[in-house]
Amino acid sequence: MEMLRQKIRQCCLVEKDGVLRADGFLNHQLDMELYDAMGRELARRFAGKGINKILTVEASGIGLACVTALHMGGIPVVFAKKNRSSRMGSEVYTAKVSSYTNGVSYDIVVAKPYLQAEDRVLIIDDFLANGKSVQALKALIQFAGATLEGVGIAIEKGYLPGGKDLRREGIPLESLAIIDRADEQTGEITFRDFS
Amino acid sequence: MEMLRQKIRQCCLVEKDGVLRADGFLNHQLDMELYDAMGRELARRFAGKGINKILTVEASGIGLACVTALHMGGIPVVFAKKNRSSRMGSEVYTAKVSSYTNGVSYDIVVAKPYLQAEDRVLIIDDFLANGKSVQALKALIQFAGATLEGVGIAIEKGYLPGGKDLRREGIPLESLAIIDRADEQTGEITFRDFS
Repeated sequence: MEMLRQKIRQCCLVEKDGVLRADGFLNHQLDMELYDAMGRELARRFAGKGINKILTVEASGIGLACVTALHMGGIPVVFAKKNRSSRMGSEVYTAKVSSYTNGVSYDIVVAKPYLQAEDRVLIIDDFLANGKSVQALKALIQFAGATLEGVGIAIEKGYLPGGKDLRREGIPLESLAIIDRADEQTGEITFRDFS
Repeated sequence: MEMLRQKIRQCCLVEKDGVLRADGFLNHQLDMELYDAMGRELARRFAGKGINKILTVEASGIGLACVTALHMGGIPVVFAKKNRSSRMGSEVYTAKVSSYTNGVSYDIVVAKPYLQAEDRVLIIDDFLANGKSVQALKALIQFAGATLEGVGIAIEKGYLPGGKDLRREGIPLESLAIIDRADEQTGEITFRDFS
């Protein structure tokens, strides 16, 4: 998606260990014109699949999940919570995430009433790196007996295995920009052609 | 806003100590048709004020902030992060929040580039109770030398002092539903007339 690639070229900082900072438009300050375009594009790519719910994880996936949901006719969004809230009760699905970015593990939790066996679910997130978050969200969907219809991502780090793993599993994955190389010396970012 | 009041009547659970659970439509599963209507209504109420940025705090304020921003022409959203991320650098504004709901204190943080002196800011959040989050967001805006143009809330707990304090300070506050009483015995919810 060219609008997103341009924004990445203009605004992304490449840090040590291939960490990309997209604070200025994606996950701290949110460029809502870009978000609107990304949500519209994800809705277009996943049209006709009977998707009736979007699942994401707090916090930085929520914005894109909401905008995409609006472009899909106002279907509900569920966001998994990190760690377990004392107010959530005992009726929850839980899965563990080992975060690549922060080097910490945590649980994500969804209250059972909000994932049902008849749900056809689209997972949305801002970044796909090693795929730990998406795999945990996928586990929650499986626990509920619901159907995973696809995964929609803003920026995939193509040099990390998350996307490759999902494609090998046969899960429809749409990443609006795939970065194959991010050079921490020069700051140069190389995109995969078809992204 | 009648649509929101209906939803609260149908779906809100009143728990001990007047805690309202709105998990089913507001802050875990998000009813995006309701969100779209709430965002449109907040945009209408704050039209003509030259607002160029929306500020909220992760996680449950992000959805409403994004939808409102779309209805305000796609202005950017900034969400303050809870606790300080090691990846945010040293150039941040910080304020402390003592949470009513969880009984814990934490810092909220915005990177300095995303709040500028010329910004005219609308604060958005899902709930207003004692107003601790909003007061901390207000402090961040003050640190940046920016202008607070108003505060937009989905559900205000009118029996707690957050809203009263903001009105006394002369800050334009729009709450889409104000609850004056939530009876934990009967589950009955009483709305303020004009909300």
